[in-house]
Formats: sequence, structure tokens, C-alpha cells
Amino acid sequence: MASKIKKIGVFTSGGDSPGMNAAIRAVVRTCAFLKINCVGIFRGYQGMIEGDFKPMDARSVNNIINKGGTILKSARCQEFRTAEGRRKAYEQLTAEGIDAFVVIGGDGSFTGAMIFNEEYGFPVMGIPGTIDNDIFGTSNTLGFDTACNTVVEIIDKIRDTASSHNRLFFVEVMGRDVGHIALNVGVGAGAEEILIPEEDLGLERLVESLKRSKKSGKSSSIVVVAEGDKIGKSVFELKEYVEEHLPIYDVRVSVLGHLQRGGAPSCYDRVLASRMGVKAVETLLEGKTNLMVGIQNNELTLTPISKAIKGHTKIDSELIRVSDIMTT
Amino acid sequence: MASKIKKIGVFTSGGDSPGMNAAIRAVVRTCAFLKINCVGIFRGYQGMIEGDFKPMDARSVNNIINKGGTILKSARCQEFRTAEGRRKAYEQLTAEGIDAFVVIGGDGSFTGAMIFNEEYGFPVMGIPGTIDNDIFGTSNTLGFDTACNTVVEIIDKIRDTASSHNRLFFVEVMGRDVGHIALNVGVGAGAEEILIPEEDLGLERLVESLKRSKKSGKSSSIVVVAEGDKIGKSVFELKEYVEEHLPIYDVRVSVLGHLQRGGAPSCYDRVLASRMGVKAVETLLEGKTNLMVGIQNNELTLTPISKAIKGHTKIDSELIRVSDIMTT
Amino acid sequence: MASKIKKIGVFTSGGDSPGMNAAIRAVVRTCAFLKINCVGIFRGYQGMIEGDFKPMDARSVNNIINKGGTILKSARCQEFRTAEGRRKAYEQLTAEGIDAFVVIGGDGSFTGAMIFNEEYGFPVMGIPGTIDNDIFGTSNTLGFDTACNTVVEIIDKIRDTASSHNRLFFVEVMGRDVGHIALNVGVGAGAEEILIPEEDLGLERLVESLKRSKKSGKSSSIVVVAEGDKIGKSVFELKEYVEEHLPIYDVRVSVLGHLQRGGAPSCYDRVLASRMGVKAVETLLEGKTNLMVGIQNNELTLTPISKAIKGHTKIDSELIRVSDIMTT
Amino acid sequence: MASKIKKIGVFTSGGDSPGMNAAIRAVVRTCAFLKINCVGIFRGYQGMIEGDFKPMDARSVNNIINKGGTILKSARCQEFRTAEGRRKAYEQLTAEGIDAFVVIGGDGSFTGAMIFNEEYGFPVMGIPGTIDNDIFGTSNTLGFDTACNTVVEIIDKIRDTASSHNRLFFVEVMGRDVGHIALNVGVGAGAEEILIPEEDLGLERLVESLKRSKKSGKSSSIVVVAEGDKIGKSVFELKEYVEEHLPIYDVRVSVLGHLQRGGAPSCYDRVLASRMGVKAVETLLEGKTNLMVGIQNNELTLTPISKAIKGHTKIDSELIRVSDIMTT
Repeated sequence: MASKIKKIGVFTSGGDSPGMNAAIRAVVRTCAFLKINCVGIFRGYQGMIEGDFKPMDARSVNNIINKGGTILKSARCQEFRTAEGRRKAYEQLTAEGIDAFVVIGGDGSFTGAMIFNEEYGFPVMGIPGTIDNDIFGTSNTLGFDTACNTVVEIIDKIRDTASSHNRLFFVEVMGRDVGHIALNVGVGAGAEEILIPEEDLGLERLVESLKRSKKSGKSSSIVVVAEGDKIGKSVFELKEYVEEHLPIYDVRVSVLGHLQRGGAPSCYDRVLASRMGVKAVETLLEGKTNLMVGIQNNELTLTPISKAIKGHTKIDSELIRVSDIMTT
Repeated sequence: MASKIKKIGVFTSGGDSPGMNAAIRAVVRTCAFLKINCVGIFRGYQGMIEGDFKPMDARSVNNIINKGGTILKSARCQEFRTAEGRRKAYEQLTAEGIDAFVVIGGDGSFTGAMIFNEEYGFPVMGIPGTIDNDIFGTSNTLGFDTACNTVVEIIDKIRDTASSHNRLFFVEVMGRDVGHIALNVGVGAGAEEILIPEEDLGLERLVESLKRSKKSGKSSSIVVVAEGDKIGKSVFELKEYVEEHLPIYDVRVSVLGHLQRGGAPSCYDRVLASRMGVKAVETLLEGKTNLMVGIQNNELTLTPISKAIKGHTKIDSELIRVSDIMTT
Repeated sequence: MASKIKKIGVFTSGGDSPGMNAAIRAVVRTCAFLKINCVGIFRGYQGMIEGDFKPMDARSVNNIINKGGTILKSARCQEFRTAEGRRKAYEQLTAEGIDAFVVIGGDGSFTGAMIFNEEYGFPVMGIPGTIDNDIFGTSNTLGFDTACNTVVEIIDKIRDTASSHNRLFFVEVMGRDVGHIALNVGVGAGAEEILIPEEDLGLERLVESLKRSKKSGKSSSIVVVAEGDKIGKSVFELKEYVEEHLPIYDVRVSVLGHLQRGGAPSCYDRVLASRMGVKAVETLLEGKTNLMVGIQNNELTLTPISKAIKGHTKIDSELIRVSDIMTT
Repeated sequence: MASKIKKIGVFTSGGDSPGMNAAIRAVVRTCAFLKINCVGIFRGYQGMIEGDFKPMDARSVNNIINKGGTILKSARCQEFRTAEGRRKAYEQLTAEGIDAFVVIGGDGSFTGAMIFNEEYGFPVMGIPGTIDNDIFGTSNTLGFDTACNTVVEIIDKIRDTASSHNRLFFVEVMGRDVGHIALNVGVGAGAEEILIPEEDLGLERLVESLKRSKKSGKSSSIVVVAEGDKIGKSVFELKEYVEEHLPIYDVRVSVLGHLQRGGAPSCYDRVLASRMGVKAVETLLEGKTNLMVGIQNNELTLTPISKAIKGHTKIDSELIRVSDIMTT
């Protein structure tokens, strides 16, 4: 492989997710294996603009495969959305001798990379790192599997106390635009109802369903609610509504929040990150650019970033059906 | 031991806590061991009033030592606060042939037992089961150790994402009147500040402290806040205040809520529950009553319920000092 | 759907795996949803022969989705391998009015079902439940994902102590014929070498690799070894060999054993089990038989049992390459 | 406090245990708080002899409170047992300007410190760090609580598979001379029998007890065995014996080994480590020496090292009784 690329930059961008460190490690180690230089860029595009760089060798990523968060830090960066910001970034990269970069992040981060590639012809490669699993072209984004495990473990704990008091809990999980986490943890935790952005169950049907659940003899009820659920009510408003229309329940609310982003990555996310990191570097060295590494049918694939950022992975209607049947 | 007690009732009351099932198991198995009958009373005093009883033998408590919540359910009961309610309860107990009971719960539940004992001369024994660790006469209540582990594990996860984004998090933990959970998890999770009901740090000192922490080069800050902290502001108000007075921080909030009550009990809580259950039954059979089993200096002790419900275990001032030094 | 099937039996067979309970729950609830009777068969084929049956309604599977093991128990059964044993089983099923069954297990259990189907024309459907992931026709068997998580968490702990003492550990994981667990946890835990039944690394190359690892400045080394690794040495023999040929290392051994089978299933395994349970019942009601439900490219598929038991999912050679690169 | 001590060394020695990092952090931060210099000594006495030192400021111990193992590494060191070795160590300490040290370890490490203090009048202070809980003068050593939690979680997993197959498991846990881990996890995991170095149950009584357990209808049996149990048989020999004398059981063995040393420390161990670290530094600055910091009745205490290394904390006979009653 006689590539012109001699030095690759790597960074994380946007919301952090478990597996990002494993992906950084994989990019760094693949560079070391192929005798390419590797540079860590801190705080995403912000650090790129400021020249916040650090050379990384194979040992610099020891013992991070199992750590949550990102050792390179992450940030959202307004300045990179301006032509001026991107020019500064290009100058910093050039000054450092960086020939290409791997961005680990979500669709916002990918969009920046794509524009940058189009403006400067700079080789870029994306690795999908976000717990939301909302990127087209991959069945899994890094962190989704871990986040689902984190949430079901917590709902298991909430179930303990809910069952002991015959209570109803509304549990809000992440997912502003997509319901992948909500739907999977809802099925995985045996939730009585699942409210997601893609479907409008309707408040009345919710109340009907809860009434049925109570009648069937269940000792507790958990309703999983995605942040951006279609009903458009916060978990606190849902609590009020149900207390008014279904006074048989003692209702509680739990907003899980940022703890969903943290924690040691699952084995799946670690392995996926390792595979994607290798593929990202090798693909850059093959002279390709503006692509995202994904996984489909357990094989690594490449999708143009322009396509990856447009679509969402669709909610699986079969899984919604499974959920309905399971709450019998 | 020639006791007149032939049948002991056992129940859980008030908020549930990890270790309650292990205590139920211990009471049931000790009765079986001593050839005494044992009856489970469901839903605390409410079930007692309604005669919701079930005989329990040694096998009925198989495989529950590691389960959170309580298989006997728990409830708060207004009716038992009335003389009429207690009369009904007494009639139900008598009808069932129950001679004495063990109540697993907190100070509210103990108060009910004490009054009942005074009115009817009915032998009662208390086991302290609450995550708050706010009962006088025992260094640990059942569930406190587990709840602390649950919370530090979650703050570890929050730390991952906080560090990745250089953020400040206010994390609200349980403790309306006492700061034991907040203080212990604050020290255990390396929190930068800890706000508890017993001490008024003051908003200005909080801001000063956070400023210093930022200056010292820390990449994230966690402030643990007990529900009933002395400053008297919710975590949401604290967020607003700090954002206004210390705009260098990106501030987030996490309210942990009921998940703190659930989960498999720690080894410590399982062992403590087992020891307390044995002691409670044996003490009743010795003809004693109106006492709470506690643990002090790793030995089981007995404290009159009247004393147990009056005081709180004091916050350890040495631990507050340790916390101050650790945040250097 | 006007099926002649009115009563479906469900059982678990062979080695247990996390997710079996979730699959039982899914079969039972799908039957309830479709107003079909469902009967639990205890201890696999042994219980079938003995008529150890219990009718199951929707509530009988409350709160088991997150439990490891199997509430229906499992067993290996010699008698069912005989024509006489199968005849008894058929009589018991007929006497109970069971029209079809769902077997949750591995290839041995499937073989039994296939023969039974061929002999008696009895409708059977398989759900792959084994931690080994060694069944053809599905990318994942129930329990594999959970087992991988269990093992990486434990190797993370071993890494703590290995790093503190600059030690080399040989960690034996399950996998007599296939190296899926070993390869995935090896990559996921950042193992320095991975020994699997499918590849003969050779003892000399192992020693060379460990020498290189030590030289590169790593503070500890973990070698993951599948039970049936090709080198054909136990971890204890490997320890001896390395101590003799590479005396720079302080070597320890850890045999993980049966703990790999237990534990609460991961979210992935719970969801997969729920989906497979629904599909198994619906496929039987469509009049199909002698098939195994699998998952491929995130879609449920059906594979003739005769094919499922013949092949193994192949070890992914790309993943072996990733492993080699990661240990740079 | 006008102490002559200006620079304190800190190190970990012997087998590592969870909480050691939290103790290092506490020593370092207390020094920073009191404006004393602090130096980390790598690999215990070995690094002391070799002058493997590194100055540590408050930030150097960021984010280690929740990490297992020890960032300063640990080792056993023969050379320090010789007068010559200790002389070299003294010269290295003097050359570096270190005035006193805090040793985190077990009785072997303490003995070395005591001799060193007697020979050179060098101020030394001990913090008990070992999972075995076998040091006199403290109710808890660092790591004991965590190790107990690690083991009960694993036995919970083993119980899943044991129950599914009606099996008997012998589980070997650490404890060559003392049975604290075995006794506590045995009670905490609901083991049917517990074999410890302090008591000789006798093989016949073991078989009797297992027979009774089977008869009583239990679906599985777990026997927890300390490494150094009095019966003097390995778990493999116990398996053979029981298979021969009690053929009703399908027997399996699990040797937990080093994984018991690793993992994130429990909240209790983190808090205890923080308290002990503060106390160790402050006590040195008060001009005291040759003491071990301990915890008794939830208060920090000081015990002469000469006494700490002589006795063991006794096994609690009440807890043995509780264990007997619980297995009814």
C-alpha cells in the first residue's frame, strides 16, 4: 500500500459515548502497526482550530479500552461551522503535517467533516460514535449497546422498588429524535408501555393500557419514555395526567439523564470499536475519503458521509409488535 | 428456651430497601430452626389490618437473599395511626394466632409498633430497614451500604461524561433529613462539594470552591446534593445560580431518585440482615419486647424503640473534614 | 390463522444460558396473546418422558426476563436418545394434549427434536440457547452476548491485579469446539494473545509474542485460552511452558468455569429472546415445523434444524486480524 | 503543627487490594493540603531500594479513587529482608530527602517497616491494605468489603446455573489462614456449607449436611471453601469425595482466584481509604511512628505495628451460628 498519507489525526466530537476510547485506541494502534504517525486532536473541532495536538504511539492508549468517556475530550464547536473556523483548522492541520483525519462522533460531526473535505480536499473518515443509534448505514453506533445495558440494569432496580409498592413509574431515557434506546430497553426491561418519537400512542390508549395491566394482576408498571416522544408530554406531565385519569396508581417519575452516556463499554462495543478503527485507517490509506465505517450483517461496510447523515435507521416495526405481545 | 411465643409474624413497612428480603429470610429460617411457626404479613400495617397473611416455611424464602425490594410488599398506612385501625390489626393477629411480630422498616414503622405494644402488650421487635441510615442505636441500617454502592457506581458513570466535556454536575441523592448517603458517596466518588441537611455551606462558598477547583486544573466537577440540603435550593436552582455567578462552567443536573432503593444487596447488607433476623427472633423468644436490633462496633445490640426513633445517627464531622481535604 | 395447534409445550435443554428465561416468557406470553394454551415442561426431555408438566399463563412468567438460568430447569437426557424414551415422551405429550413444542437449547437438543419430529410427525420449533454461539443459521445464540460481557468484566478485574504486579495471566474461557467467546473477549479485554480451537498459533510463536509484548513496555499480559484450544495444552501446562521458556514473567492462571453461564442477561439477549419466542410460536401456528429461529442481519430467519446442527458459525478471520493489530 | 517532616513517601506492598489507589490519593492530597511534599515509591520495597521515586502533587491522583489495583505497583521483595537491602533503601530515601513513609499493605509489609524503623529511627505509618481482613487492630482492611461483594456477585451467577441443573458446586475463595471472606460470602450468598481454616467441620458432617439439604428440597447447593480450610482437601478432592459418598449430586468446582483482588472499590472501601490516608499523614506529622491506622467502632484508631502483625481478627462465632441457622 503506497499511500501518500503519513500522519493521521484522530478526535472525538459531539456527545461522548462508551466505546470512543476503544476506537481511539484502535486508530492509534493500527497506525503504529502500519508505521504511520498518529496525532490525537483534543476537544474535537475546537482543539483542531486551536492546534491542541499530541502525538500518540501504541503505548499511549494502554488500558483505555474499558474506560467510558473519551481521553481526547469532546466538544461541540460553533466556530467550525464558519468558513473562517475551518480555514484556521486547515492551517493547524497543515502546520502539524497531518494528512487525513478520523472523526468519531454523530451526524453533526460528520457534516463538518464532509464540508471540510469538500472545501480543502482533505481526506476524512467517520466512525459512528453516539448512544442514539441514529446514523444511516450501520446497524449499530458505538455506545448504543452499552447504553441499553446501563438502562435495563437501572430499570431492573426501579422494578424492585416499584413491585414492592405496587407503583407505576415513568422512566425517561435518551432519544430526542429516535426511539431506539427506548424501544430496546422497554422490551428488555419488560416495560408495560413504551413511548417513542416515531409513534403516537395517544394518551387515552396509554391510560387504557395501564388500566388493563393493573387488572391483569401485575404488581408494578414501568413506562419507558423517550425524551422526544410523540405524545409531546414530559414525564412529569404524564404523571399528572395519569394521576388524574387513573387514580388507582401511585405514580413516580425517573429521568435518567447523562448517566446513560458513561460506564465501561460492553464487549460488543469494544469489539466493534476495534474493528471500525482498523477499517477507518486502512480505508484512508487506500486513498478513499468522505466515508463512514459501519457494520451491517456483521460485516464492515463503507457509506458516503453524505448519505449517512441524511437518514436514520428506522425503528423496527416488528419490535414494536413484540413489545405489544410481551405486555399481554 | 420455654417461651410462650408459638407463632411470629414478619413484615416490611415504609420505603423499601435492599436487604429487606434477606431479613425476611432470616426471620423465617430462624423460626423454622427453632420450630416456631412463622407468618408473612403483606403490605405492612395495611395488610395486618386486612388479615393479608401467609404461613412461611424455610423453603418459601429460597433464592431471595440476593433480591432487591421485598417479597412481602411494603406500604405506608394511615389507618394504623388510628386506634380503630390498630384494634382491627390486633383482632386479625389474634384470629391468626400470631403471638409477636418483627417489623422491618424505619422510624415511622417503629413508632406504630411501639404504640401497638403499649396498647395491647403485644410483643414487637424492630429491624432497621431504610437506605437513609438515620436510626439511632445502630451504625448501619439495612440498605445503606448497598445504596451507597449504587450511587457511587452511577456517579462514576457521570464522571466519565463530565470529564469528557469539562462539565459541572449537580447530582441529587436521597436524604431529606440526614446527609449520610450524600456525605459517604460524595467522599467515595471524589465529589468536589457535598451539600447536606446538617451543614450550611452557603452559596457563595460553593461558588468560591468551584472556582478554585476549576483553577486547580480539574477536568470536571461533581457536586453531590442531598434532597434536603441546608442551602434549601433544588439542584435546578443551584444550576441556575452557578451558571449566573460562574459562567465558566457548562452545568448539568442529575436527580437519581428511586433507583437508589433497588438492586441486589451488597454482601454487607445480606450478612447484616441475616444476623439481625436471627437476633430479632431469639430476643422475642427470650420474652423481651419493644426493642430494635442494631449493630455497633460489629456486635449486635438492642435499643428500646422509644430511643431508636428519637435520635438520628449524627453526621461524622471527621468525615466532613476528610471531604474538605480530599478536594484539595 | 386457523391452526390445528391448541396447546404448545416449551422447555429448555442442555447447558443453561442467560436469556433462556426471557425466551420462555416470550413463548408463554405469545401463546396467551394468541389464546393458545401453553405448558411448561421441566428438566428438558427427561421431564417430557416423566410427564413433568405445568400449565403456564401470562402471569406465571412475571419478573423472569432479567433472571439468569432457567425456571423450567434443564438437563441432558440419555433416555430420549432411545426409541423407547421417545415413545414415552410422545405418550406423555399426547396425554397432556400438547400439539407442538418449542425447544430452547443447543445442537444436541435440536437433534433430539428433529428425530422426534421425523418419527412422530410432531411439530417442533427450535430457539438457539447456548453461550457458545456455535449454531449455524444465526449470528447470535441466546446468552453469547451476556457471557462475553461477564467475561470481559472479570478480565478487567484480573487486569487490575496483573498490572499492579507486572504479571502474565492465562485465562481459560468456555469453548470446547469453537473460539467465539475467546476471540471476542480477547479483543474486548485487550488480550495480548488469544488461543482458539480453530487456529494453531504454536507454542513458539506464543513465547515470541509475549517476549515482544514485554519488550514493548506493557505492564501486564493477558492470554485468553478457549477450553479446546488447538495447541492442546491446559492453562496449567501453558504456565509451566512459559515459565520455563520465558522466565522474565511471573505467571498465573485463572479458569473461569461455570460462572460464565450465569447472571442477568444483557439487553441484547433479552430483546433477542423476546423476538425469537414470538417468532417460534407464530411459525408453529403457520403449520411449519422442524425449523430453528435465527437472527441474521438483524432480521429473524428460519433454518431447517437439519442444517442448523450441521455447521458452525465460522470464526471471523477479519477479527483475528484485528486482534493481531491491536496487540501492537 | 510544627513538624520536622517535610517530605513523605508512600507505597503499596504485597498483594494488591481494591482501595489501595484511594489510599494513595488520600495520602497525596493530605500532603498537598498541609503543604508537605509527597513522593510515590514504585513497586514497594523493591523500588525503594532502587530509588524508583516520583514526586506527586494533588492532580497526579485525579480519577484513581475508583480504580482497582495500584498505580504505584506492588511487589514482594526478598532483598529488603536483608540488612544490606534495608541500608540501600535508607540511602535512597535520604538522598531523595524523604523524612517518613506510609506503607499500604499487609502484615509482611508492616514487619519490614517496623524493623526498618527500629534500625534507622525512620518514621513509618501503616495502612492495612489486603482483601483477607486478617490484621489485628482494625475491623476492616482495605479491599475486604469489595472482595466480598465481588465474590457474592459471582456466586449469584453460579447459583443461576446450579439451580437450573440441580447441581452442587464447591467454590474456592481466598483465605489461606483466615476464613473471613469465606464466612461472609458464604452467609451473603446463602451457601449450604462453609469450610474455613479455623474450624474442622469434618468430611462426614459435610456429607450429612448436604444430604439433609437435598432432602429439604433445595434445588442446588453451594459450598464455599477457603483456600486453607481445615479439612485440608482441595475443592477437587472434595468433589471426588462427595461424588463417591453422595452419588445423588452432580458436582462441579469453581476456583475464583485472582479476580477477587481486582475491580472498582466499594463505596465503603473508598471512604475508609480516604479516612485512613488523612489519619496516616496527620499522625506522622504529630511525631508518632511505628503505628497502624485502623478502624474500630467506626472511629479511626492507632495500633502499634508490633501488635497489629501478631494477632488476627478472630472469626466471629456468632456468624458461624447464623450460618448454621440460615441453612435450615
